[in-house]
Amino acid sequence: MPQYSAPMNDIKFVLHEVLKAESLTKIPDYAESSPDLVDQILEEGAKICEEILFPINQSGDEEGCTLKDGEVTTPKGFRQAYDAFAQGGWCGISADPEFGGMGLPQLVNTVMQEMICSANFSFGMYPGLSQGAYEALHQFGTDEQKQTYLPKLVTGEWSGTMCLTEPHCGTDLGLIRTKAVPDKDGSYHITGTKIFISAGEHDLSENIIHLVLARLPDAPEGVKGISLFVVPKFLPDDMGRNDIHCGSLEHKMGIKASSTCVMNMEGAKGWLVGKPHKGLRAMFTMMNAARLGVAMQGLGIAEVAYQNGLEYAKERLQMRALDGAKEPDKEADPIIVHPDVRRMLLTSKAFCEGARALSYWVGMNLDLSLKSEDEQERQAADDLVALMTPIIKAYQTDMGFEVASLAMQIHGGHGYIHEYGVEQYARDARIAMIYEGTNGIQALDLVGRKMGAHMGRYLRRFFHPVSEFIEAHQANKDMAEFIFPLAKAFAKLQQSTAITAQKGLKNPVEAGAASTDYLRQFALVALGYMWAQMVVISQEKLASDEGAQSKEFYESKIKTARFFFTRMLPEADWRFKAIMAGAEPLMELEAANF
Amino acid sequence: MPQYSAPMNDIKFVLHEVLKAESLTKIPDYAESSPDLVDQILEEGAKICEEILFPINQSGDEEGCTLKDGEVTTPKGFRQAYDAFAQGGWCGISADPEFGGMGLPQLVNTVMQEMICSANFSFGMYPGLSQGAYEALHQFGTDEQKQTYLPKLVTGEWSGTMCLTEPHCGTDLGLIRTKAVPDKDGSYHITGTKIFISAGEHDLSENIIHLVLARLPDAPEGVKGISLFVVPKFLPDDMGRNDIHCGSLEHKMGIKASSTCVMNMEGAKGWLVGKPHKGLRAMFTMMNAARLGVAMQGLGIAEVAYQNGLEYAKERLQMRALDGAKEPDKEADPIIVHPDVRRMLLTSKAFCEGARALSYWVGMNLDLSLKSEDEQERQAADDLVALMTPIIKAYQTDMGFEVASLAMQIHGGHGYIHEYGVEQYARDARIAMIYEGTNGIQALDLVGRKMGAHMGRYLRRFFHPVSEFIEAHQANKDMAEFIFPLAKAFAKLQQSTAITAQKGLKNPVEAGAASTDYLRQFALVALGYMWAQMVVISQEKLASDEGAQSKEFYESKIKTARFFFTRMLPEADWRFKAIMAGAEPLMELEAANF
Repeated sequence: MPQYSAPMNDIKFVLHEVLKAESLTKIPDYAESSPDLVDQILEEGAKICEEILFPINQSGDEEGCTLKDGEVTTPKGFRQAYDAFAQGGWCGISADPEFGGMGLPQLVNTVMQEMICSANFSFGMYPGLSQGAYEALHQFGTDEQKQTYLPKLVTGEWSGTMCLTEPHCGTDLGLIRTKAVPDKDGSYHITGTKIFISAGEHDLSENIIHLVLARLPDAPEGVKGISLFVVPKFLPDDMGRNDIHCGSLEHKMGIKASSTCVMNMEGAKGWLVGKPHKGLRAMFTMMNAARLGVAMQGLGIAEVAYQNGLEYAKERLQMRALDGAKEPDKEADPIIVHPDVRRMLLTSKAFCEGARALSYWVGMNLDLSLKSEDEQERQAADDLVALMTPIIKAYQTDMGFEVASLAMQIHGGHGYIHEYGVEQYARDARIAMIYEGTNGIQALDLVGRKMGAHMGRYLRRFFHPVSEFIEAHQANKDMAEFIFPLAKAFAKLQQSTAITAQKGLKNPVEAGAASTDYLRQFALVALGYMWAQMVVISQEKLASDEGAQSKEFYESKIKTARFFFTRMLPEADWRFKAIMAGAEPLMELEAANF
Repeated sequence: MPQYSAPMNDIKFVLHEVLKAESLTKIPDYAESSPDLVDQILEEGAKICEEILFPINQSGDEEGCTLKDGEVTTPKGFRQAYDAFAQGGWCGISADPEFGGMGLPQLVNTVMQEMICSANFSFGMYPGLSQGAYEALHQFGTDEQKQTYLPKLVTGEWSGTMCLTEPHCGTDLGLIRTKAVPDKDGSYHITGTKIFISAGEHDLSENIIHLVLARLPDAPEGVKGISLFVVPKFLPDDMGRNDIHCGSLEHKMGIKASSTCVMNMEGAKGWLVGKPHKGLRAMFTMMNAARLGVAMQGLGIAEVAYQNGLEYAKERLQMRALDGAKEPDKEADPIIVHPDVRRMLLTSKAFCEGARALSYWVGMNLDLSLKSEDEQERQAADDLVALMTPIIKAYQTDMGFEVASLAMQIHGGHGYIHEYGVEQYARDARIAMIYEGTNGIQALDLVGRKMGAHMGRYLRRFFHPVSEFIEAHQANKDMAEFIFPLAKAFAKLQQSTAITAQKGLKNPVEAGAASTDYLRQFALVALGYMWAQMVVISQEKLASDEGAQSKEFYESKIKTARFFFTRMLPEADWRFKAIMAGAEPLMELEAANF
């Protein structure tokens, strides 16, 4: 049976030692979020994840959701779990206290997203989508809309969705056909079909608040003619049933306990959110937070897959170590003695711990971007979040799937069998590379929108601290084995950045051709930056009295970093070479001759 | 709905132009296998795959196998398909004519394996396992055993299995506990439990012939005490039911239409095959052919996934090309205009076509190793097959899964939905990385058994022709862009070979630490060698009258090769660096501190 235990030691290490996140308490809004309180809340959150969400993960996958007479039933135990989750206040941990939220930093939410997804990816979809709806209404809704919807979304009594995709368009929202016709009372009649709507219909909450993209009658063509509407399942005034219905459920590879609905609207009543024709912008603002959430799904699924691969590798006895028996009293050695099993485990560990530092860093910057009292700091943090969001969304979800696949491989034949639980992680993980903008779209966002923005200002938010870090530690002999490869990889990243930016200005196809490899190269350097910082801290701790108490922890950090720099970071060289090859090898073959 | 069309043009190109496989007809046993006959047979085979096996692939996945009262029912249509397949003679295309086989080259079988797996991976398991049983009995059985079992295995009236794995041991067969106690009549009573037995029970054939590994009472411990037995479901003399029963079916990630059984034996009647205590050797002889078959599964699933990704990329209209609309009369351009979609398609295409050449080359050498009249040629071919089998098994199955995942990615959200069919390819593909020896075990086989064997003789079977090829073409200016990177990558492979061999002699952990990266590096160079040869041929053809008729085909080869050399081959540099890092970064972390 699979297992999950929240990695609280590592989470605290990242929060307190790497990020020194207590600095957030200087922000008045977060003044009460003391480190002790945050730890306490996260430990409570970990308990919910381990004891309530995780035990129904495997059964939820087996049972799936069912649709009957337009009503969706979630798997056994999901209602009770959702009630416990909502009653614990977990739907609104970072929500505005004005509407009943706990007002905790986004960083706390980021950590929770990781743990929820480790415990039960499918379950996490329901409150996750509500957060998206909350954000959209909080930022763009009228006061009346906020008063109507936010308090119930925050308690979890109501849940939310984002209705974007239609059968003929996902990535290209300019093609949307759903129509909104104004009524005399100021509302709209909305008609159209939306597909792939997560949490579109289910039995967890009293009401479901859909945020729907549609076109007004006078809308310009394309993306400039899309407006955002709030379309509740039950109308808030009299709780009458609105004409938005689930037509069918998709049969998916994974996240089977998350309902994925086709939603049909036949003149459903809705209200405009924000300005006419500005819906896409509103949706994109929301989507940045959603993409960070998806990045956490990648990390979360990798963490739980790694834990199970590790446990199996320690327990499974098979063959002897190549240099002689390690446990001669047993019939064979545990497979963790084998270098190739360790390669898979260390790849997983180096990713999880590095990505944890990286994505929490982005989460903390999200707080600074929203709440810092210093405008310059807000801007700088906002830039960094904008830059790093596509990178961690794509890289962490690619790796979430890869690490889940490695956990299967460590399990051998058992990895392919449902009972052991790890094949579910691979199936669940796979969606995160696709939704909220495919990873290819993330890469285009990086080279197209982020790279050149404001004369490279976003890039400098990352490049400057890395440069400074390298400079500060390059004379430190103990750091040489880490700083040298980081500096080399960083120099190549600067080079590919300059070339891609330059070529891309002349011909955007060149930027597109570089995009995925560039994103991966960037992510590897970013992970290297995180690992090098963690080594500095670990070396300092080991030299101090404090560190001696957790010697193994800090030594393990340094050894894992060594693996990362010698075995994983060199992938960036391959990516660099692929980028340098330019667009021609991709573009010269005519479509008909593939 | 997914689709499959056998890539006959490319298959013929590899057989006739790259391999010049008609040379096999010089071998008396193959004298009748004229190129025309082979083409005709393959075209018939393609029809069976496209028209009979493929249409029940998706429904087979949905329905799966069911177990009731010890009997397994395969999905709807499988019995009829099996009957058609068997009646067409496809179970015995390469089998010995003495026992009713068609006696066609193994190479023809290799091609068929690719197509069968493209069409219906699960279906292919049944005749695939029979082939394994046939091989074992053909090589190691007594005359009486051959007369009893082979003719019925060849017609497909009976099918076969390989019963190796037990709950506590898969990779480490030395731990096997199943017991065989001699009876007075020369037979044995076999008792034990086997797991993960593909085709262990089903309703396709009249009888199932199990080949079972077990221990005799006087057996030495470990791998030197394992014997091979034939244990038929129904006894051949009176067709009485033997005491070997399916206890349960595994619930797997994929290949759901292939029954994976727990087999219980309670004193089942069996007969020794080959010599006592020599069962593992017999099993391994068989396994080489089985591993080549699994390599073909990797290629087969990649091919069908690629075809469906390509079709979708040509049809799906979404966004405009980055450098301006390509089809302005449509509401958007087909997504194949986007460089990142092309990156995914070209990765798939370059793999499939390169791997086709590579694995057919190995298939042809299997024929030479078995049938050549020249002993030296037999030996050389046998060495090459021994060397390349673990490489193509691991690399092609890794890539089978990766290409299936790329096809999902090209499909966007639709890729995650069962209806579109591509997510099934990823689920089905995943098993091939695990069974018949995990890919980690293949890598250990390469560095442990193949690299050092006979003072590097196996290696020379590959290194010499590559050296000669590079030398022969290095002065050709038209080839420079291909020969230069190949020569560079090849030099690095020679370097990592020397270092790994040298370090591995002193400490086998070093070889183990290099193994997976080394195998991948080797595979990339081997694919490069294939692509460079295909470019030479294509350039020659284009310069001739003959080539002008298929200009697009040969130009497409050259352009795909360009993609391979500039974008895929550089991965070998990363692998080289990882190998050079040595074992320490893998081994220094104590198991308890992971």
